[in-house]
Amino acid sequence: MKTGYLGPRATFTDLAVREMFPEYESVAYTTIPDCIDAVVNDEIDIAVVPLENALEGSVNITLDYLIHEVDLPIRGELSAPIRQHLMVHPNQLDNWKEIKTIISHTHAIAQCHKFLHQELKGVRAEGYTSTAGAAQYVAEHSDEPIGAIANELAAKEYGLVIAKYDIHDFDFNHTRFIFLSKQALNLPIKPNYVGYKTTLMVTLPADHSGALHQVLSAFAWRKLNLIKIESRPTKTGLGNYFFIVDLDTALDDVLIPGAIAEIEALDCHVKILGSYPYYQLKK
Amino acid sequence: MKTGYLGPRATFTDLAVREMFPEYESVAYTTIPDCIDAVVNDEIDIAVVPLENALEGSVNITLDYLIHEVDLPIRGELSAPIRQHLMVHPNQLDNWKEIKTIISHTHAIAQCHKFLHQELKGVRAEGYTSTAGAAQYVAEHSDEPIGAIANELAAKEYGLVIAKYDIHDFDFNHTRFIFLSKQALNLPIKPNYVGYKTTLMVTLPADHSGALHQVLSAFAWRKLNLIKIESRPTKTGLGNYFFIVDLDTALDDVLIPGAIAEIEALDCHVKILGSYPYYQLKK
Repeated sequence: MKTGYLGPRATFTDLAVREMFPEYESVAYTTIPDCIDAVVNDEIDIAVVPLENALEGSVNITLDYLIHEVDLPIRGELSAPIRQHLMVHPNQLDNWKEIKTIISHTHAIAQCHKFLHQELKGVRAEGYTSTAGAAQYVAEHSDEPIGAIANELAAKEYGLVIAKYDIHDFDFNHTRFIFLSKQALNLPIKPNYVGYKTTLMVTLPADHSGALHQVLSAFAWRKLNLIKIESRPTKTGLGNYFFIVDLDTALDDVLIPGAIAEIEALDCHVKILGSYPYYQLKK
Repeated sequence: MKTGYLGPRATFTDLAVREMFPEYESVAYTTIPDCIDAVVNDEIDIAVVPLENALEGSVNITLDYLIHEVDLPIRGELSAPIRQHLMVHPNQLDNWKEIKTIISHTHAIAQCHKFLHQELKGVRAEGYTSTAGAAQYVAEHSDEPIGAIANELAAKEYGLVIAKYDIHDFDFNHTRFIFLSKQALNLPIKPNYVGYKTTLMVTLPADHSGALHQVLSAFAWRKLNLIKIESRPTKTGLGNYFFIVDLDTALDDVLIPGAIAEIEALDCHVKILGSYPYYQLKK
């Protein structure tokens, strides 16, 4: 088996791959569509891409591509905390408080706003393509007074040392990574296994008051619990929305099909994006 | 009056500023929190930041910062289409089909996936900090066979020529930009004015089946139309969610306060993030 992920090496997506599929060969891709296409074209077996709250990708790109371009089910999910560290070249470790510039993805810089403001006031923060790329740049410029914000894997990968751990402002910042593949995955019941989830896409017939309320009634009276709901514009025009709904249970033979039948009777369209186990990394 | 935006110059956010506040001085900031802080600290009067579907920023960062860090109301919104163009240095225009590398923000590259795949197969696509930054790089390397993907303003700003217009895959990709300021803004009724919107944040007391359904009932029976709903995890732990709800009407004295009172009686917490006019650019 071969996995693909949103690269470069040592991104947060790469971390997810190493956690879930340590035994497989993995390939880095530049964009989410490239990575998903590689599964469609049988270059790889599993694509691991961020779905939500991502540093390196966008929920919109992943969802749009899944909905409009390809027909690949979601086979599993890992939710992982985003931990940001300040790292420097070993040469600079003793004087890390004197660094002049910090580079990272602008989202990572934004996530460490308070730390930078309070601890490194006046230090220039500069955007870079990715957190991993920033770490690589710092490694290749050992004599410059610069640091990178990235994850622990990037420090290892590029031979940097962490001057300050956990400099992100919020502790509960997680990213959801999903696994897409043609065939069912035999995912293990690991310690970080949480449960099963079913993700549906519901398109409303018209943007009228109460339509969503009716749809949710079909879940509510069956005690099907929604753990996430998000509205997104369809690509056919402004003002038309569809909804992505996550139910906290596996697809069964009675309740979810019954809810879907009822929702379709309201002239909505329903597509099952996947019913899959999900995992949660605690640290 | 002075505006601040998510820079550098000629980003999509800068485009929004020039559309809505052409007469004001404007300042570019590196991150969304920096830009919002500048309003809090009275360096600028209005912050313009992406709220949704953004290339250069993240809805999460903007929302998190608005909800947890500052208390600034949303005063207005512009929804603008994301049009991506392929641009090269004038020296390269005649041979643009022979370019070897295209640089841009990775999200922009992903948004032009089909075009790149079909029209420029084999050309290397490389990530850059921002679309505007990529355009600047191309301008400064006039002899290299490279192109950038960016907006029209970036082409003008950095003296590039557009080799191919509208290379993005989806036509209905819009970004919402919001205006934050301490004082009320006297926004004009422009041709692209659409209407009023009220944005609420609703925190549920516990993640139980049907809670959201009850909340939506309070809007539904008053015929308050939801144009957007999104669930987001709170920062206090996993499994606790709040909802961001957009109603397609201005805050009134009866209906919305009545719905809020009812929702609060269900032990939910409601915060009004703003009631504001919104504008939509068509092209």
